[in-house]
Amino acid sequence: MKLSFSKTELLKGINIVLKAVSSKTTLPILKCILIDAQEDNIKLFANDMELAITTVVEGNILEKGSIALEARIFSEIARRLPEGDISIETNERMTATIKCGKSVFSIPGQDPSEFPPVPDIEKEVHLGMSQFTLKEMIRQTIFSLNINENNKLMTGELFEIKNNALRMVALDGHRIAIRKIFLAGKYEDKKVIVPGKTLGEVGKILSDNLEDQLNVYFSNNHILFEFDDTCVYSRLIEGDYFHVDNMLGGDPQTKINLNKKDFYSSLERSELLIKEGENKPIILEATDGIMDMKINTALGSMHEDIPIEKEGNDIRIGFNPKFIIDALKVIDDEEINIYMINQKAPCFIKNEDETYLYLILPVNIL
Amino acid sequence: MKLSFSKTELLKGINIVLKAVSSKTTLPILKCILIDAQEDNIKLFANDMELAITTVVEGNILEKGSIALEARIFSEIARRLPEGDISIETNERMTATIKCGKSVFSIPGQDPSEFPPVPDIEKEVHLGMSQFTLKEMIRQTIFSLNINENNKLMTGELFEIKNNALRMVALDGHRIAIRKIFLAGKYEDKKVIVPGKTLGEVGKILSDNLEDQLNVYFSNNHILFEFDDTCVYSRLIEGDYFHVDNMLGGDPQTKINLNKKDFYSSLERSELLIKEGENKPIILEATDGIMDMKINTALGSMHEDIPIEKEGNDIRIGFNPKFIIDALKVIDDEEINIYMINQKAPCFIKNEDETYLYLILPVNIL
Repeated sequence: MKLSFSKTELLKGINIVLKAVSSKTTLPILKCILIDAQEDNIKLFANDMELAITTVVEGNILEKGSIALEARIFSEIARRLPEGDISIETNERMTATIKCGKSVFSIPGQDPSEFPPVPDIEKEVHLGMSQFTLKEMIRQTIFSLNINENNKLMTGELFEIKNNALRMVALDGHRIAIRKIFLAGKYEDKKVIVPGKTLGEVGKILSDNLEDQLNVYFSNNHILFEFDDTCVYSRLIEGDYFHVDNMLGGDPQTKINLNKKDFYSSLERSELLIKEGENKPIILEATDGIMDMKINTALGSMHEDIPIEKEGNDIRIGFNPKFIIDALKVIDDEEINIYMINQKAPCFIKNEDETYLYLILPVNIL
Repeated sequence: MKLSFSKTELLKGINIVLKAVSSKTTLPILKCILIDAQEDNIKLFANDMELAITTVVEGNILEKGSIALEARIFSEIARRLPEGDISIETNERMTATIKCGKSVFSIPGQDPSEFPPVPDIEKEVHLGMSQFTLKEMIRQTIFSLNINENNKLMTGELFEIKNNALRMVALDGHRIAIRKIFLAGKYEDKKVIVPGKTLGEVGKILSDNLEDQLNVYFSNNHILFEFDDTCVYSRLIEGDYFHVDNMLGGDPQTKINLNKKDFYSSLERSELLIKEGENKPIILEATDGIMDMKINTALGSMHEDIPIEKEGNDIRIGFNPKFIIDALKVIDDEEINIYMINQKAPCFIKNEDETYLYLILPVNIL
């Protein structure tokens, strides 16, 4: 095999597939990036058996072939080489010679035939949307799940297509985050659970440009995100997702409208008084026109108030400030509405048409 | 006590003294910043018993007094408060109330009389120089010492005033870094060893402006750096420093002149092939006009060459690339001179008047 590319193109490709390189595996081949130039284009592959990514790199094929190279060293070499054209050449002992300017590296390669193939997905059931929209939906929900959770279902997000809308749901034991968009085309109803790790990595690769399109394909066990020259394959999480709609009931007795930034700064300050692992609530007390915020911990106490617009009952309720902060961080609106039922029921931060909804459980206070 | 200041002024002061707050101590008072407004100005103090810093903060004293506040929480509160005027007021139970806008924090204070006093230094033997010059001299030497070293003498730098020049020396078992400046005034000869930790912290506080002056005072056991509104006190390291001049001898048989940036990039690339903890040399082979660089490790091999100007013998010599990289990083010259004696003797990277000199031991090669 003999290939040449610009440093920029090669690095772009490496950075995309690196996200599916396994760091924990004991299987050496899974620590590799496969370079495949057996056909008419140059493709990079990485596959950690949960997540697989392939992308096309622009370059010249001087001699067809393929090789698997240890990802860490290969990516570091590509990064540190001088700007310019990089060539990669392999010999029959599977040693790769990487040249750029006067710099010549030789590193051992591995047998490309050992590299696990990507899952086979029939490109039938699919969904078309803007890359940026999906990127935003991921950012606005993913913080509510816990990829280290024992309950597998909580480590992924629900992707639900229903009535021509896509809804993404993430939850842990304390909160739920929901984002919904209305789809342009007509789609069959569909419900899958996508691993949080996959979404985290996909979110990093997707473009910030609303014009750039993306296709999503589903099989029984896999999901495929296809965009630009890149395909991201991921296993799905099996099981019956939580019945989220049952958790969203209740009749709000209080509606509070307030400035997000002021509320956010106060909450952030209140967090200073909470030691790691401690579970001290900030107590919100909403009356007409004003909301008092108080926290009292071993480290000290804080007291602030901010102007609000309130409809319905006065309320006094406690929250872990972190959970409200997390939601406020991803809401773009300057003014937000908070709906509360009573001191012991969850509150909802949501907009009118519920394209976003954050449910947060309160903390018991006296 | 009741004080008021702008957030900017208070934060500036806190950030300076924070560097002398102990993080490891079990003594609660050493985790504090002392605010002292018993006289006509507001002073902040921190003291970890090795290093003590005091600085003056501009502000208004509405009621004289003093208080010690836990540094971490106090600094975090100051940082997160909205922009504006901050007031601090204490009561007889030593609780401090920190107010800014609508935000009110109360945190417990500690008895200021428990706070350790700063060392008493007679301001006689002193040295005047530009803050920036000292900052640079620290940066250009400090990397060669190891503050975790068992040999106490290697954890500090030699400050040597001799023949109206100041020389700073840092060394570990593999290398020596020396910076020298000629002093404007007349000074008595003096030799002290200043802890590396002190120099690291002083370097962070010193200004980048050549015009800003600094005075250094010495006592038998302490050194005092006085600049702007800040005083940094530090214990000295006791003992007889290494006889550095004896290590600088030998008659160079080879002098190499080369472009620092090219050499640096090559060395940096060669490091990629060295696993953490591994001790593989880069082998330099200098002949007329060209220097070959080769490295061969379990991860692979690299080969590059760069143009040089060589005087004297050809040479083949091995180095740990890290040690050369560290020196090149802090040399401002674009072209550097390397002097070598033979394959087993240290090399010297230095300029004509030896205002900088870096000695590096070679690695044995065949």
